[in-house]
Amino acid sequence: MGSGKVYIVGAGPGDPELITLKGLRAIQAADVLLYDRLVHPDLVSEAPPRAIRHYVGKERGHKRRQEQIHRLLLAYARKGKTVVRLKGGDPFVFGRGSEEAIFLARHGVPVEVIPGISSSFGVPESSGIPLTHRGLARGFAVVTGQCSQSDSVDWRAYAHADTLVILMGVQNRQTIARALIESGKDPVTPTVFIEKGCTSEERIVEAPLKAVAHGEVEARPPAVWVIGEVVRLREEVKSQCRSSLTAASS
Amino acid sequence: MGSGKVYIVGAGPGDPELITLKGLRAIQAADVLLYDRLVHPDLVSEAPPRAIRHYVGKERGHKRRQEQIHRLLLAYARKGKTVVRLKGGDPFVFGRGSEEAIFLARHGVPVEVIPGISSSFGVPESSGIPLTHRGLARGFAVVTGQCSQSDSVDWRAYAHADTLVILMGVQNRQTIARALIESGKDPVTPTVFIEKGCTSEERIVEAPLKAVAHGEVEARPPAVWVIGEVVRLREEVKSQCRSSLTAASS
Repeated sequence: MGSGKVYIVGAGPGDPELITLKGLRAIQAADVLLYDRLVHPDLVSEAPPRAIRHYVGKERGHKRRQEQIHRLLLAYARKGKTVVRLKGGDPFVFGRGSEEAIFLARHGVPVEVIPGISSSFGVPESSGIPLTHRGLARGFAVVTGQCSQSDSVDWRAYAHADTLVILMGVQNRQTIARALIESGKDPVTPTVFIEKGCTSEERIVEAPLKAVAHGEVEARPPAVWVIGEVVRLREEVKSQCRSSLTAASS
Repeated sequence: MGSGKVYIVGAGPGDPELITLKGLRAIQAADVLLYDRLVHPDLVSEAPPRAIRHYVGKERGHKRRQEQIHRLLLAYARKGKTVVRLKGGDPFVFGRGSEEAIFLARHGVPVEVIPGISSSFGVPESSGIPLTHRGLARGFAVVTGQCSQSDSVDWRAYAHADTLVILMGVQNRQTIARALIESGKDPVTPTVFIEKGCTSEERIVEAPLKAVAHGEVEARPPAVWVIGEVVRLREEVKSQCRSSLTAASS
């Protein structure tokens, strides 16, 4: 009693209509909204006029900023506020949402997690690429391409997934592509970078894995990188898949 | 011109409020709704009263039924109807949505894919299990546990993912657990089956991988099976994570 509640909410991959109904309702009931860099402004404006809005977009790995977010969430909850922590994509997929949830739970603050459409599958899908497809891919893996010296990915553990999705991997794409080929991935495997997916500025770059390994492929973040035979299905699905519902309502 | 359009929509993992706003709007504008077994009735009733509703829930792998769905979608689209194909979870994650999209695109029917919250991460997350967590899991893999003689999973390709999520794997759990251990997975790796996740009937069964391999673990479908160190985080997050928003609105 006395403590407010914190909703950790996924905003989805760019298109504001890809938030869940539950997430939207949480925003509309918020006393306080803390939101990140990739959250669409239309979602921020769904909070009540009286709500306090905090932009807490941060450069990656900025430790002090994360501690500040923890302190803000706790302080508002202790004032009895209904707090929404709104994060791009899904809050528990590379979103550090789990760290925030654990911090709050340890301090006795009630937390509810509301999933969001992760860009790892929402972006490929909206571009006509299924992560699974009968006869082509019976599973997929999702990995972060961000590397740090203390905590790096063992690419051998992921190289043989039928479909591999790499988030935040544009900067290290050449190193990653080489590591995958060294782990036994076929160099001619088709890959695609989907830049700014689920937005009107979407841009697609297709290239075989070996071209990425050779440093021949230009791509700009933020992008979702998909590696696998399913990439070939895009042409079959894509041409007809355009986001007219969004266009009609915006 | 003349052809209607087909929206292939993900309904999310059980809780009807976990559909996207875009998916809900598509249902509300439907002339025809084709829906599956695991779709919540509240979502079916969001279609306009005049809409034609087809229940096409099918036992898995029933080929003739899938062809019938294709024919229905095509026939209604050719009559100029706005058709919504509503599927549990996400339509492109083991949903055969990609087969339907390709079939329709080949016949010149405009298709739009609207992602849904896949139970592969929405269910663990709502139970307090993040698929990634700094220092514990830098990636995850999602695989179907359904086996057929012609098209079976190479478990070596997935055994070393930091977090492994298996859908439709309850029936073959013992065989799968053995295959993972034979592929080098640590037998004491914690695992959890989340039965009927994101519903009021949710039931949790935790057990180390070796107990599943020894046939000591009872579990009932439908369940999401999560394997990895992140399972240990559930106790830290879980107790506070209850779905009060749903309770309040239902």
